[in-house]
Amino acid sequence: MTAVAAVPPPLRWWGWGDRAAEVPAGLIALLRDEVAIGGEVVSRPVDIESVALPESALPEDVLHRFAEIVGAVNVRTDREERVRHAAGRSYLDLVALRTGRPAAAPDAVLHPATQAEVAAVLRCCEDAGCAVVPFGGGTSVVGGVSPMRGSHAAVVAVDCDRLDSLVDVDSVSQTATLQAGMRGPRAEGELAWRGLTLGHFPQSFEYATIGGFAATRSAGQASTGYGRFDEMARGLRLTTPTGQLEVASPPATAAGPSLLQLVLGSEGTLGVITDVTVRVRSRPAVRRYAGWSFPDFASGVDALRELAQQRWLPDVARLSDEAETRASFAMAGDSKTVAAARSYLRVRGQPAGCIVIFGWEGDGSSVGTRMRFATPTLRRHGAVALGRAPARSWLRGRFAGPYLRDALLDRAVLVETLETAAEWSKLMAVRDRTADAIRAALEARGTPALVGCHVSHVYPDGASLYFTVLARQESGREVEQWRAAKTAATDALIAAGGTLTHHHGVGVDHAPWLGREVGETGMRGLRALRASLDPAGIMNPGKLVT
Amino acid sequence: MTAVAAVPPPLRWWGWGDRAAEVPAGLIALLRDEVAIGGEVVSRPVDIESVALPESALPEDVLHRFAEIVGAVNVRTDREERVRHAAGRSYLDLVALRTGRPAAAPDAVLHPATQAEVAAVLRCCEDAGCAVVPFGGGTSVVGGVSPMRGSHAAVVAVDCDRLDSLVDVDSVSQTATLQAGMRGPRAEGELAWRGLTLGHFPQSFEYATIGGFAATRSAGQASTGYGRFDEMARGLRLTTPTGQLEVASPPATAAGPSLLQLVLGSEGTLGVITDVTVRVRSRPAVRRYAGWSFPDFASGVDALRELAQQRWLPDVARLSDEAETRASFAMAGDSKTVAAARSYLRVRGQPAGCIVIFGWEGDGSSVGTRMRFATPTLRRHGAVALGRAPARSWLRGRFAGPYLRDALLDRAVLVETLETAAEWSKLMAVRDRTADAIRAALEARGTPALVGCHVSHVYPDGASLYFTVLARQESGREVEQWRAAKTAATDALIAAGGTLTHHHGVGVDHAPWLGREVGETGMRGLRALRASLDPAGIMNPGKLVT
Repeated sequence: MTAVAAVPPPLRWWGWGDRAAEVPAGLIALLRDEVAIGGEVVSRPVDIESVALPESALPEDVLHRFAEIVGAVNVRTDREERVRHAAGRSYLDLVALRTGRPAAAPDAVLHPATQAEVAAVLRCCEDAGCAVVPFGGGTSVVGGVSPMRGSHAAVVAVDCDRLDSLVDVDSVSQTATLQAGMRGPRAEGELAWRGLTLGHFPQSFEYATIGGFAATRSAGQASTGYGRFDEMARGLRLTTPTGQLEVASPPATAAGPSLLQLVLGSEGTLGVITDVTVRVRSRPAVRRYAGWSFPDFASGVDALRELAQQRWLPDVARLSDEAETRASFAMAGDSKTVAAARSYLRVRGQPAGCIVIFGWEGDGSSVGTRMRFATPTLRRHGAVALGRAPARSWLRGRFAGPYLRDALLDRAVLVETLETAAEWSKLMAVRDRTADAIRAALEARGTPALVGCHVSHVYPDGASLYFTVLARQESGREVEQWRAAKTAATDALIAAGGTLTHHHGVGVDHAPWLGREVGETGMRGLRALRASLDPAGIMNPGKLVT
Repeated sequence: MTAVAAVPPPLRWWGWGDRAAEVPAGLIALLRDEVAIGGEVVSRPVDIESVALPESALPEDVLHRFAEIVGAVNVRTDREERVRHAAGRSYLDLVALRTGRPAAAPDAVLHPATQAEVAAVLRCCEDAGCAVVPFGGGTSVVGGVSPMRGSHAAVVAVDCDRLDSLVDVDSVSQTATLQAGMRGPRAEGELAWRGLTLGHFPQSFEYATIGGFAATRSAGQASTGYGRFDEMARGLRLTTPTGQLEVASPPATAAGPSLLQLVLGSEGTLGVITDVTVRVRSRPAVRRYAGWSFPDFASGVDALRELAQQRWLPDVARLSDEAETRASFAMAGDSKTVAAARSYLRVRGQPAGCIVIFGWEGDGSSVGTRMRFATPTLRRHGAVALGRAPARSWLRGRFAGPYLRDALLDRAVLVETLETAAEWSKLMAVRDRTADAIRAALEARGTPALVGCHVSHVYPDGASLYFTVLARQESGREVEQWRAAKTAATDALIAAGGTLTHHHGVGVDHAPWLGREVGETGMRGLRALRASLDPAGIMNPGKLVT
């Protein structure tokens, strides 16, 4: 029996994880050369005692009623707990936390342990005119857990961390029912015992929760093979202020519009998801990961498209563009392996190619066969095999980005990501115009940017695009600076035919654009639905549909 | 350039297709032996002039306004046109039509040619207090096109047959936008020219339309490989009485709840779907179909489950239980090939086994590899290969069921189907209890039934179950007889953990059970959504959410 995977300690209140990351010397050099960043540590988070925090607006009698529902120890109004639920983990969230100026904080943080407690909390909140922010791992990068009170007098965060049990495993049907507060590692650990895996590994995996995955339509790094979370989810239970919605989990149904697909992506605005039934798989006996290099991004995109349309995609497929590849090499440093790879690529005529990481998982003969079928397509598009080293390096660092971000913030670096998806016929235009828009917006402010991009979720009809932006912070104007770039990027990607978001969700940050994605009639339908389940409008105000 | 596939002539007003089917002698013998049916022709449809039809309830001025929108020739109030839109194609629909007693008929049938005409028609209907039944191929078997007027004075059918263009093909992204009224053969024909296929082949393929597939969450015979229609659909346009909902078609999105999955399965209750963007594929170079026999249904189910969970499923997988296999052999007659197969199965110890039809499609090496990977699993579960003959026979007859049904109705046979889906762990119980319930209900009325079942849509977590019921009609009490069986079956399958419907939809027939599937909160959400898009309640009253 394998031990349950270790669940990492809580997030630092001002950042990610529990440990400091080194900034690789090569990255410092790249930033210096390309975007004029010095690389010295110039900024540190304030002390938690210095964080500006208003008094809790909740009257004693309401706190008392909460305590009667969840127990007094599970009604938290202390500074640390409120600060820990004051923001998600976007770049601007982190800037606000580090400088001790979060936009708001919940008036209390509640930790219910059962669906019945959640239901009672929502009833109590409706009575008391108190807004509710459903809280999972707190890793939203779009403002999804911002403690906004809307028109209400107060706001509480309902943290699902005590809803963290495995409810049921059906090993014949390969499904499992997991409570919403279960974090990624614990879910995988519980399943691993039973020879199963969910296969959902977003970068936030260590901290994010099952409920959060469902509420935001999360997609993991292996979504190409294992599917997005909205494809894994089969059923769920949603506690709304007006009753429970239980969505059964048949393998497929034609019984009307999909209520499952309505709750997935509802971002806490319809209620609190308390458990989710997911499709799981046998743990793969074999995992084969390898790196290849394409002459350029367009060739790599063409190869991925062909593999997708032939149904011979690997389970992981992550193609970096030229800028991201350059940054990856810079971060990898100048070890012998890396130097050898670079000189090999020069010899093969790809001094500035694009790296792709492929991963195949399954039983041995199946993995071998699928690799064999993919290889001719890769070669036809000019791919050069780089062996396992680049893939091993990617696997080691697959959850490391957010740790590194904290270290870059210490160095006054603007570091943020954004993402979209588009059909193949539009993909290159969406990439070009979005990257151009970001570069132009930041260049115009005197802070030139390094904008890298990768494809990491591949479909027969298109793919995702994930952008990473690095620039010098405009000190004191961090908010305006990033908002200018974000607005330019979002306008550009929508105009070019991309979706508003492939997997980060809408939250607060994308809400102004949702109407452009779904139209006036769509917004009306979503509002009606929200009003029917939450007539008092207490659920996560300010998010999604505003 | 291949010719566009021929589109069959219109349905007979009282049945299917345009030609009579023979009832195989073997089937007549089986019915005589097992359910005491004589097999003589004892009933013929009445003449269309004898069909009971009320006067059109639409005043002249409304008809005149319709004519201004769609042109006078496209506002039809003649007997034939009204009868042709008076019912779908369930067993009880056919009984009603053949006896000249449809429950109702539309007061007019409109044929708009553009989205703008549809929108104007809906506005006019809202003004005039007239209900609207969106009409595609008219092949619903659950009452989805029954001309019910609800609380309105009149009802029109909005037939989408003039909305039958290919709007766009994106051959790079492998997507196509098709108008809603396009029938299956025409859609495939248009795509075939371009080397593409949709791969959606429900039994109603020849007559059903793109809009109908979307509105009902249709699943085709190759759904195991090509996906259900709700997986093929990427975007659509829905014209509601209060505005147009345009759902874009990114390969995936996290921009809130899925409006696409809300419209799919809405069965005309939210508006008229005018076009759908679908994922298409390259036409397969190779199609390999073969039959196998399993010792019993349970072994076959186990084998399908393993293949599904290993991700080595064929594109078509259709496993008949013992009763359905017996009926298939009876229908196949006693040609040399069939006799040889039967004696071969006796020798191999499977005198009463269960036939499965598998089909693999794709390029040659891919098909061969996938077959090779599947074979050991089949053999481990006792499967015996029967070669291509049974598969060829199935392919020839894949759309023939509804033709044969008309010939059986001539012989006073109760012949109907119903379907569900369930997780693997519940599948055998759902099959057994549903079949038992049908047999018991009909036995209790003195009309013993032959109930066959097959699995034809296979998923990693479960599969569909499709039941065919044959019994002697209770003359003059056909409605009560079938309703007793249907109610018993539906109660049983829901109690055992099946879904209300895997692909027939809800319509009128399943509406009383929808609350058991989605709960009170789910019904409230669906009603709110409907009210927001169609406040006057003119869209397809009596269907889905009542």
